[in-house]
Amino acid sequence: MQPYELSVAAAAEAIRARALSPVELVDSVLDRLEQVEPHLHAYVSVAAEEARQAAREAEREVAADRPHGPLHGIPMGLKDLIDVAGTATTAGSRVRADHRAAADSTVAARLAAAGAILLGKTHTHEFAYGLTTPQTHNAWDRDRVAGGSSGGSAVAVAAGAATFALGTDTGGSIRVPAALNGVVGLKPTYGLVPRHGVTSLSWSLDHVGPITRTVEDAALVLSALAGHDPRDPASLAAPGSPYRPDGATELTGLRIGIPRTYYFDHVDPEVQAAVRRATAELESLGARLVEVDIPMTRYVQATQWGLMVPEATAYHERTLRAVPELYRDDVRILLEAGELMPAGDHLRAQRSRTLMRQAWARLMEEVDVIAAPTVPATAVKAGDEAITWPDGTVEAVSDAYVRLSAPANITGVPSLSVPVGHDTAGLPIGMQLLGRPLGERVLLRVGHAYERTRPARRLATARTTA
Amino acid sequence: MQPYELSVAAAAEAIRARALSPVELVDSVLDRLEQVEPHLHAYVSVAAEEARQAAREAEREVAADRPHGPLHGIPMGLKDLIDVAGTATTAGSRVRADHRAAADSTVAARLAAAGAILLGKTHTHEFAYGLTTPQTHNAWDRDRVAGGSSGGSAVAVAAGAATFALGTDTGGSIRVPAALNGVVGLKPTYGLVPRHGVTSLSWSLDHVGPITRTVEDAALVLSALAGHDPRDPASLAAPGSPYRPDGATELTGLRIGIPRTYYFDHVDPEVQAAVRRATAELESLGARLVEVDIPMTRYVQATQWGLMVPEATAYHERTLRAVPELYRDDVRILLEAGELMPAGDHLRAQRSRTLMRQAWARLMEEVDVIAAPTVPATAVKAGDEAITWPDGTVEAVSDAYVRLSAPANITGVPSLSVPVGHDTAGLPIGMQLLGRPLGERVLLRVGHAYERTRPARRLATARTTA
Repeated sequence: MQPYELSVAAAAEAIRARALSPVELVDSVLDRLEQVEPHLHAYVSVAAEEARQAAREAEREVAADRPHGPLHGIPMGLKDLIDVAGTATTAGSRVRADHRAAADSTVAARLAAAGAILLGKTHTHEFAYGLTTPQTHNAWDRDRVAGGSSGGSAVAVAAGAATFALGTDTGGSIRVPAALNGVVGLKPTYGLVPRHGVTSLSWSLDHVGPITRTVEDAALVLSALAGHDPRDPASLAAPGSPYRPDGATELTGLRIGIPRTYYFDHVDPEVQAAVRRATAELESLGARLVEVDIPMTRYVQATQWGLMVPEATAYHERTLRAVPELYRDDVRILLEAGELMPAGDHLRAQRSRTLMRQAWARLMEEVDVIAAPTVPATAVKAGDEAITWPDGTVEAVSDAYVRLSAPANITGVPSLSVPVGHDTAGLPIGMQLLGRPLGERVLLRVGHAYERTRPARRLATARTTA
Repeated sequence: MQPYELSVAAAAEAIRARALSPVELVDSVLDRLEQVEPHLHAYVSVAAEEARQAAREAEREVAADRPHGPLHGIPMGLKDLIDVAGTATTAGSRVRADHRAAADSTVAARLAAAGAILLGKTHTHEFAYGLTTPQTHNAWDRDRVAGGSSGGSAVAVAAGAATFALGTDTGGSIRVPAALNGVVGLKPTYGLVPRHGVTSLSWSLDHVGPITRTVEDAALVLSALAGHDPRDPASLAAPGSPYRPDGATELTGLRIGIPRTYYFDHVDPEVQAAVRRATAELESLGARLVEVDIPMTRYVQATQWGLMVPEATAYHERTLRAVPELYRDDVRILLEAGELMPAGDHLRAQRSRTLMRQAWARLMEEVDVIAAPTVPATAVKAGDEAITWPDGTVEAVSDAYVRLSAPANITGVPSLSVPVGHDTAGLPIGMQLLGRPLGERVLLRVGHAYERTRPARRLATARTTA
């Protein structure tokens, strides 16, 4: 096994045990990155020399036996919405051509303090306002979309070009590319991970979280990210807590809700089957499967868009008027549409969110976790704009991709996407586990237990179906 | 002195001491009401027989020595936005012609539990969406406006046609009519008094509070009203507490902020002089006057309207489409205008409110209380639509009346209006005391101390200037 194939947990343990040097690890991941990047385009920019220098410094610290953080020497990618002092945050947009961040975002500072080493900034759909990340190719099939908006981060992690990465999630942007590239993505509880220094799409729906190859790794990275920061007005005062699951795979007594509707409507049969197999696996570990009704599903789309669209437009108001031609068409049209939305529609969306939060709180009294598909389909071909369902219904790819992930953004509940196999075309499938607010530990425990029942996952190897 | 002239405190004490019977008190107030009501039109409806019956029951309870509440036998008026089971809540509108409340509002239930006796429902500007209450005449001059939107409540209390009353305040609607009729009005901290069962104008700005003839009375009524109710989503968990000020008039060490700008700009010279005399009085009681700068004043009007207008329109959406002709023109036009407001303007108002709250919190670290005029002018002639200031500026009456009261609605801080004399035309002038969130006790202490330096106030006697 090459160092670039190691999980965060294994690499960190090997560095602690001096079985692996940070220099070896970073060199190995950078070599892998150089090899796959020409085919995948996961990164906006790679700071190889700075990363190697940081690795040498990390190696000296190990040699000198100086205390170091839990992610000491671990190489990572950061979605290019996340500020790192002195580096551009392009947000995937020509609007940001001259940008340079003056200071670290809270998450970049916390990961640096934990010892992680930045490899580079990863591609995002422009300003995170889309679900495909057209710059980047799917890690399993170059002709397919990466998913978005955190496409670069998910592809880098899936291909071994980063040991972990961060994404952001406003309507599914961590979980969708994680599912489509066969890696783990965690959208934490709203307010758990501070967003100071992270470019906003829609501040009432935005989340920052980890993309990793294992659930245990998601827990390790979350432990470094979580905790109050007064500079994010939505940041919770909740204490950080250790998220790392123990080795137990016993789930006796845990009630897992299986949605009767919505989460299994208009879902590809192979995706359905993979998720059903995974929930059967959870049952065999002792969990009790309970059928549940998801509340207010007909309001999900209107609420998500009613909140997201005007907030996004408000954020871009000045640049949209000054330099509209610098945005790509799809994003510019959405931003311009936001200028036409009446205040009443936004108010209705805010009120609907309040009711949905209350209804979900009642639902989550019946069960501990809900298990459902993350995305209704696997990765579509690049350029495909719609999915045709067996009943003849046609749905825009962006609508389909956001459909099952948006409820967790609206309600703020945590959602963890874990890989549950591949379809017959070899494309990855994701299952999401939804929990109570601040219920990350339960999700990580369930995801980890599931993961340990499965054979070790291999890294993605990009191919083409063409 | 007639019973109808008694304060809440004096009447309650006389009833407790069996020096006064609830029947005598209610009869006296009803007689007064019958005498002044034809000239003032404070009430939508008077339930004289029910009130007399309740008074007889209250008298029996006193005779039987049964325990009774702090407002036992005290007759009151309720603004006709406040639900009382089995009674119409007309909200001053033909839209509500067929309305009948199924249950008591929280405040009606709490006052009934405290022993208060309902005389009737008082006039409001239609749906509280205006500052004049055109149905009602000023208690001091029939040709002048009552102020609004709680005009009926303020006029009834000022004229002795209720021992106390309740109003609601979204942009000044308790304090403005209180000031213009020479009585005390308290807009409590946002969330302190539950609004369940009270018709909404703009839920993020609406407050319910007492209108009384003394500050001590405001404290007594507030004690009966305050406290958590989960049926109002904004209701605070803060514990109710005794608000009644002790007799002390000593204010040594208290820092009273005197605004350098805004609150004294475009304010009638007689109003200015009366407020300055009152603050000098507070200084002579030991308080220290400190000049302060009010933050973000140029955003007050846009923020107030940016929040109020779309929320009001959202509340009326269905009836506005079904029966627009049932609204008066002024209110219908405002509601229709709300349909045209873009979501971006509402979002900007929400963000501006967040910043104003933070800026006011910093301001309130410098001082304990802020003293300022409640309204920039005394009551205008009925039908006057604008005020011309000495520098030639013309301001709509509604804009002028709301201008100094809106900051407390936007920020949610408590504001107490106390009478500080009359202008040369004999019209009352009000001073408002603003405090920290949940700082009602300090406001009531200062207002009470001021009040005790003044000669006993006489009831209003309506006359005409015509």
